Amino acid sequence: MSRPQHGGNLAWAAAIAGCPASALTDFSASINPHGPPHSAIAAIINSTPELTAYPDPEYSQLRTALAEHHKISSDYILPGNGSAELLTWAARELAQQKVTYLITPAFGDYQRALTAFGAKSQTCPLSFPISPSPHLPIPPSPQPESGLILNNPHNPTGQLWTKATILPYVEQYDLVVLDEAFMDFLPPTEEQSLIPLIDKFPNLVILRSLTKFYSLPGLRIGYAITHPERIKRWQKWRDPWSVNTLAAAAAIAVLQDREFQQQTWNWLPPTRRQFRESLAGISGLELSEGAANFLLVKTDIAATYLQRELLQKHRILIRDCLSFPELGGRYFRVAVRMATDNADLVQAIANIFDQHP
Amino acid sequence: MSRPQHGGNLAWAAAIAGCPASALTDFSASINPHGPPHSAIAAIINSTPELTAYPDPEYSQLRTALAEHHKISSDYILPGNGSAELLTWAARELAQQKVTYLITPAFGDYQRALTAFGAKSQTCPLSFPISPSPHLPIPPSPQPESGLILNNPHNPTGQLWTKATILPYVEQYDLVVLDEAFMDFLPPTEEQSLIPLIDKFPNLVILRSLTKFYSLPGLRIGYAITHPERIKRWQKWRDPWSVNTLAAAAAIAVLQDREFQQQTWNWLPPTRRQFRESLAGISGLELSEGAANFLLVKTDIAATYLQRELLQKHRILIRDCLSFPELGGRYFRVAVRMATDNADLVQAIANIFDQHP
Repeated sequence: MSRPQHGGNLAWAAAIAGCPASALTDFSASINPHGPPHSAIAAIINSTPELTAYPDPEYSQLRTALAEHHKISSDYILPGNGSAELLTWAARELAQQKVTYLITPAFGDYQRALTAFGAKSQTCPLSFPISPSPHLPIPPSPQPESGLILNNPHNPTGQLWTKATILPYVEQYDLVVLDEAFMDFLPPTEEQSLIPLIDKFPNLVILRSLTKFYSLPGLRIGYAITHPERIKRWQKWRDPWSVNTLAAAAAIAVLQDREFQQQTWNWLPPTRRQFRESLAGISGLELSEGAANFLLVKTDIAATYLQRELLQKHRILIRDCLSFPELGGRYFRVAVRMATDNADLVQAIANIFDQHP
Repeated sequence: MSRPQHGGNLAWAAAIAGCPASALTDFSASINPHGPPHSAIAAIINSTPELTAYPDPEYSQLRTALAEHHKISSDYILPGNGSAELLTWAARELAQQKVTYLITPAFGDYQRALTAFGAKSQTCPLSFPISPSPHLPIPPSPQPESGLILNNPHNPTGQLWTKATILPYVEQYDLVVLDEAFMDFLPPTEEQSLIPLIDKFPNLVILRSLTKFYSLPGLRIGYAITHPERIKRWQKWRDPWSVNTLAAAAAIAVLQDREFQQQTWNWLPPTRRQFRESLAGISGLELSEGAANFLLVKTDIAATYLQRELLQKHRILIRDCLSFPELGGRYFRVAVRMATDNADLVQAIANIFDQHP
């Protein structure tokens, strides 16, 4: 098997570790370790009798639930087969611009989607190491017909930009695709989503995921928030039943699961701080600040060596950064997991550093 | 709510019937009434713990299961989020031909997909009424760079063409998309699939569904069978996790469910014959032969009137054919259901005809 382009490829990792995928502790995919919520699994099981019918092509119930959650009109919401599906259609529109600006390092699927439709892209590197600037490394006044794809909080650095930082770019660029896949990990008082402003910017597409926060990446459910005319256009590009019935039911259930949401918001900040400090305590590692549920780590030992040792000796999977060409072999990314798992990883890495010549 | 473009829109129908969608008897979507198999639901429930991981982007287990089922190499198989997703990518390739020939009446999503990528299409009407010819109404020797989209058995007529009838077209056209969504309803001794010949025709794309035969349209699972180079191209067009984990698990389970398959093959031919004869016994109805699990019916009374009466008085949903412009208001389509449901529909239609002025 070839080295995966994304985190969470457990089949690849299990072959190296020589154990079943279920025996791995996966730090490579940035998934909430509290989930999935019981409400999600109950909704899935309760909905299996509905599988004999096609999904409602309008996804009316799901759109209503999302609209109430975000306090916007349901006309602005398009559910998708994971936000990754919606990124594909967003990229098709970006390809109609003369150029699309893209911050690097970037989630690999952005370039896949842009290339799929022949979009011309211009990369804008974040300054490293290790904690990026609060400013965006993007030209503030682009040529006409410029697109922009932004990720807030940013993957893989965890950098969070404020609404005030991003807004001038939304005003200047002809089409802005804003991927907020990790925004729901921020407590409501700290999040910087542009969703409340969606009706002011017909050139804005916001992508959201439900599978990271609610630990359901296997279920495939995300949504776009954008102008209703754009939604109508995308609906003609794809087939009418893009979201499966079980995913739609689980989404409706978890949006109402305030207990799960609060539990996650209570857990993340102190656990991330503790994890970050413990890793930073290892001589040879350097860490960025991060607002999301993962940390980017710079390492004096080759990350692929660390990754292989961790798999073979500890059945732990971390995310190497080889698929982020701007980072290369000296960076890895880890999800924040439960405190005991985090401590196990810190201990395992410390041992590897101790034994390394 | 506007009139749906496809069968199986229960939300729309329930509003007219004034009852919950679950109280409707749905003849509009051509779904096997025996399903879903217990094996599918068990696989779904057993797989919920795997939802916390991303699906394997290569879908190795699922492709292996499909390859064994069809006795071909797994390199030729691409699973999709329903065959409808794969139709979208097939249409993107058809759009690169100068023209795509299309038999009408046609499943509405063909034109949606072709239009989405600006494909130029040329319609070839089936001769009516009522049973189409065993020949294809398509030019046998097209201009260079011609595409063809075929549906065998054909929806909505139920017409089945033989392999020998189709093969010369595969030899003549530059790209042939062959939708075999209903082929699995034919017993192995009667089916006319071109899958065994796939390695001989790099210009052939076969689309298959698992959701009609196994009654799982809400789950979204289909697959394309085509040349490995085309599969690699499509994989770059779409995101890596297009099939959800529960759908992949259910698919693997049902492919092995020989008992369910045999039960369906035992049930369909005599039940369809009985249903067809009973409907044809109503003066004012005329029926085509059909090889699939549905029947196309010509009616002296407007189909929308029949549809509304059946909904409001009997909570029965039939498929009007307004979205097939070549058929219009005097045709409807019904799935073959269990004998008692079929008898109820026949009785209800007979009553409406009796009371019609």
